[in-house]
Amino acid sequence: MSHILIRKNKARLLSEMTDDMNEILNDKQTDVVVEAIGGIEPAHEYILAALQHGKHVITANKAVIARYLKEFTEAAEENNVKFYFEASVGGGIPWIQGLEKALRIDNVNAISGIFNGTSNFILDQMSRNGESFVEVLKKAQDLGYAEADPSADIDGIDVANKLCISADIAYDIDIRNHQNLPIFGIRNITCADVKYFQDKGLAIKLIGRTHQKGNKFDYVVEPALFLDRTLEANTPDNYNLISLNGDTIGKLDFFGQGAGMFPTANAVVQDVLDIKEQKCHLRRDFNKKMEYCPELTKGDYLVRSKADISDVFGDFQPTNEGAYLAVHQIPVGEMHRLMRDVLQRDAAAFMVSLPSQGVA
Amino acid sequence: MSHILIRKNKARLLSEMTDDMNEILNDKQTDVVVEAIGGIEPAHEYILAALQHGKHVITANKAVIARYLKEFTEAAEENNVKFYFEASVGGGIPWIQGLEKALRIDNVNAISGIFNGTSNFILDQMSRNGESFVEVLKKAQDLGYAEADPSADIDGIDVANKLCISADIAYDIDIRNHQNLPIFGIRNITCADVKYFQDKGLAIKLIGRTHQKGNKFDYVVEPALFLDRTLEANTPDNYNLISLNGDTIGKLDFFGQGAGMFPTANAVVQDVLDIKEQKCHLRRDFNKKMEYCPELTKGDYLVRSKADISDVFGDFQPTNEGAYLAVHQIPVGEMHRLMRDVLQRDAAAFMVSLPSQGVA
Repeated sequence: MSHILIRKNKARLLSEMTDDMNEILNDKQTDVVVEAIGGIEPAHEYILAALQHGKHVITANKAVIARYLKEFTEAAEENNVKFYFEASVGGGIPWIQGLEKALRIDNVNAISGIFNGTSNFILDQMSRNGESFVEVLKKAQDLGYAEADPSADIDGIDVANKLCISADIAYDIDIRNHQNLPIFGIRNITCADVKYFQDKGLAIKLIGRTHQKGNKFDYVVEPALFLDRTLEANTPDNYNLISLNGDTIGKLDFFGQGAGMFPTANAVVQDVLDIKEQKCHLRRDFNKKMEYCPELTKGDYLVRSKADISDVFGDFQPTNEGAYLAVHQIPVGEMHRLMRDVLQRDAAAFMVSLPSQGVA
Repeated sequence: MSHILIRKNKARLLSEMTDDMNEILNDKQTDVVVEAIGGIEPAHEYILAALQHGKHVITANKAVIARYLKEFTEAAEENNVKFYFEASVGGGIPWIQGLEKALRIDNVNAISGIFNGTSNFILDQMSRNGESFVEVLKKAQDLGYAEADPSADIDGIDVANKLCISADIAYDIDIRNHQNLPIFGIRNITCADVKYFQDKGLAIKLIGRTHQKGNKFDYVVEPALFLDRTLEANTPDNYNLISLNGDTIGKLDFFGQGAGMFPTANAVVQDVLDIKEQKCHLRRDFNKKMEYCPELTKGDYLVRSKADISDVFGDFQPTNEGAYLAVHQIPVGEMHRLMRDVLQRDAAAFMVSLPSQGVA
């Protein structure tokens, strides 16, 4: 390693350390830059500058990729270098490679997964120990699984980034800023919710999923219930499980450590080796015209709210189901739109999708 | 496609068909040969001849690879062509690629999996419907999942082939003819067995597994019990689930269709594309010296037999457990050796390993 970029005013503990990005950009010996800053800026600026200076770039930064994947890819092509990002989705799981490989042959018509280890750890602990969301979140923070500001993990932003990157690749499109993506997190879940679902033989998971049909697609990030005997229901601790469905390959699932120092470093080094061995990843130009269709998928949901909300879902055969309102065969986009109305009336309201959501 | 080799005396329905292998070998235009004959000979002879004639070879034939992987690899290197076989283990699951990728960085210290879809279908149906082994085997044969002679699937031979190929790659060794590999199949399982395990919250699966520690390894094919809340216990129908454990990557699992026309064809075409795109697979010379150690792993087992067998397992704290003899902390190799004695006394005897087998 020739350089390590550090913040201004930080101690230069190693001779490789510098606080001047230009020193790296102008070093002709440096041919690969690994970005591990996180966040949007200056990561975006530095990645672009590195590509424009003829350097390969590897990053695990899902937020910046979700927004600028097309721009980075074009800059890489123009400068005849590579932009690789295996570590950004699924950590050590070879998900990007698996998806790209499937796409060499198959139309991938659905992707679904537990993309976030922190939220999975929280939901798993709640269901194992009957602890509250707040208690388990604290434990996750103490273990270093969750940030001091846990919003990206528990409000579904991290899942949204990973889902958008996956959909960009799967459909060869350019989704920016989670355009129209319905997102509902797990911040409002209670012990009583988890217990009720468990008693019905259901496990709750925060998932991201997308379907494609012709030139239409949809996607969503939401809490979802899975039957006890599914792989999703049995994905423990902070593991990830990501699935694709291809026309000839059928259902293919990848399970492993979605985060953590060693798995992430492993994925970054894999990309370094791909560059060294001149292994090209799938070429995408992210230019295909696909229409986001909020009605593509219909589902059944449970909604919990202290407010009277039966009028909100009047068109979708609402029925009472324990402490919940069950809403039937509602388009996913519509469900999330109406739920925003519910949150206006009751900021603690919660929703979860029931099993067997399918393309209409 | 330029040629299709057919048996002597078969009708030449297509102009590409020929019953003369030499026509293919001597055709300078043909640069890739896909072997789909199955079995050892003449597959072995044809693959070797094709490689020696400077043709890349792709095969899904696990039996011939398990025996001749080193010979094929050397012949490919000598003739500057590729020998690829992704479809041979795990069908459409990118297992060989996933394993080879992990090995670029990690020591893979364990592999474990449900490698055979037919036996998994049989065990899954028995546990779901309470049907007998014979009934479900008949159903599997009617569905085309099982051969008229089902021995390779139910006696663990198919798993043994796939496990040996995986271990050859993982440890860079050359196992031939399942050298010393302890194998116990599912032919003797009864409805009562399945029911008893289910009531204890355990699912039975036919698995292959191998561990490595320093320059020692072991491997085994046997029925194994898994806790209800594991991925293995929840691998349904004729799916496969194959796992590796790497030093930095941790546990990585691959789930999907392990057989079938489309998934297998997908994996074969993936290899064709790798050759076309000049994507090199991991280079192995299968020359490493590793010692098979039947005592490397200890486990707990349940044994069912109508014969009096308590003397056989006297050294391993045998206890009564329902209709079974529980045997504790016995080296896996020793267990299988003693079980062969039991089968001499009672040909219908059955054994299964309990959860949490680990390297001693």
